[in-house]
Amino acid sequence: MNTNLQTPIFRQLFDQESSTYTYLIADPETKEAVIIDPVYEKYERDESLIKNLGLKLLYILETHVHADHVTSASKLKTRFNAKIAISKNSGNQCADIGLVDNQILQFGRFEIKALPTPGHTNGCMSFLFQNMVFTGDSLMIGLAGRTDFQEGSSEKLYESVQSQLFTLSEDTLVYPGHDYQGFTVSTIGEEKKFNKRLGGGKTEQEFSSIMSSLNLPKPKKIDIAVPANMVCGVKKT
Amino acid sequence: MNTNLQTPIFRQLFDQESSTYTYLIADPETKEAVIIDPVYEKYERDESLIKNLGLKLLYILETHVHADHVTSASKLKTRFNAKIAISKNSGNQCADIGLVDNQILQFGRFEIKALPTPGHTNGCMSFLFQNMVFTGDSLMIGLAGRTDFQEGSSEKLYESVQSQLFTLSEDTLVYPGHDYQGFTVSTIGEEKKFNKRLGGGKTEQEFSSIMSSLNLPKPKKIDIAVPANMVCGVKKT
Repeated sequence: MNTNLQTPIFRQLFDQESSTYTYLIADPETKEAVIIDPVYEKYERDESLIKNLGLKLLYILETHVHADHVTSASKLKTRFNAKIAISKNSGNQCADIGLVDNQILQFGRFEIKALPTPGHTNGCMSFLFQNMVFTGDSLMIGLAGRTDFQEGSSEKLYESVQSQLFTLSEDTLVYPGHDYQGFTVSTIGEEKKFNKRLGGGKTEQEFSSIMSSLNLPKPKKIDIAVPANMVCGVKKT
Repeated sequence: MNTNLQTPIFRQLFDQESSTYTYLIADPETKEAVIIDPVYEKYERDESLIKNLGLKLLYILETHVHADHVTSASKLKTRFNAKIAISKNSGNQCADIGLVDNQILQFGRFEIKALPTPGHTNGCMSFLFQNMVFTGDSLMIGLAGRTDFQEGSSEKLYESVQSQLFTLSEDTLVYPGHDYQGFTVSTIGEEKKFNKRLGGGKTEQEFSSIMSSLNLPKPKKIDIAVPANMVCGVKKT
């Protein structure tokens, strides 16, 4: 892994409706860029930002097949001639790259690495870039992704967090796929201590017990979002 | 100005209801910290974060007397024995420090400088820290603060932005007091080019014309927020 810490262009973007974070990372010299988890309704905002910054979008990365919003991957791919990448275990039917565990993608002088973090879904990945990890719905600030729909498995999620995320340096910045309290970032050290579902040394049994007692409602958009995201955000209108 | 670029602890926090950004900056060695524009309803979140990070909150900085949300300054002051600082031109009746133009406050190994940026209100200040500027409601991403209530003056705001903000290095990161599109940060260079109200070399006349034609509704909370913020967020219940 290239640990070159040259400063990237870095933007965190928020969709208020679904509380989703999208991330744009670029090399300021070559202008080559990746975007993580873009949202369909925010296409115009993101397209305009990429254009204004003069970036060359190489990759559209999805942490997983989302159940709560539709991706703008197809629209961005068409507009910028970029490649869509998602875990080969995601069931996605249209990606250009089916990511394998620990696969590295290069953009400009930078590298981003796909860590396998299944549990919320089978095809969940987290993306490691310099001292930042983009955790999608695996590890969230103070929380963990749901394990009660799609291929959710609290056993798998616990193992993923313990082996892939909690082994990272404690000062690694955690950038989640969502936040509902207005946090934008945390650290691995804080999550190990304070995460309500996974922190403070909780055992897998304790985690599974918490997750099975959440009794959350079915995600509102799941019946639209999952099929649309399986085909990279081509919405049926 | 101390240009020591040692990495601070830095957290951007969001209040979805008022679309307000709060910022927490701390020295990781001494743990001394400042918070900018904290929101009353988010007191528990922010108190918990400061406590979890083991910080010693020295200053609560207000960019101005807000019209759209109530500050948690008084509650944080009491909890952490911190000092409240706001422009001496703000009309605020309870601050510990009435900031003068270009005043510098120290926390740990760091310094933060209060730039006078009146126009949205008479007592608006922006805070410069390393390569970041916290602009409150003076310069926002793609926009500028309203000039049609309190002591709003588009002439003053234009002059403030031109003389205090657009003279900063183009790669200075702009962290606004609000955002309504899901942007978290921009740069002075981008705002000079792309800001819809101030960018692209707009004249003061062009800016004033745009501002006077906005016809926005009266801020919903102004009659509660302004009096409450004049006394640092002591709410009448």
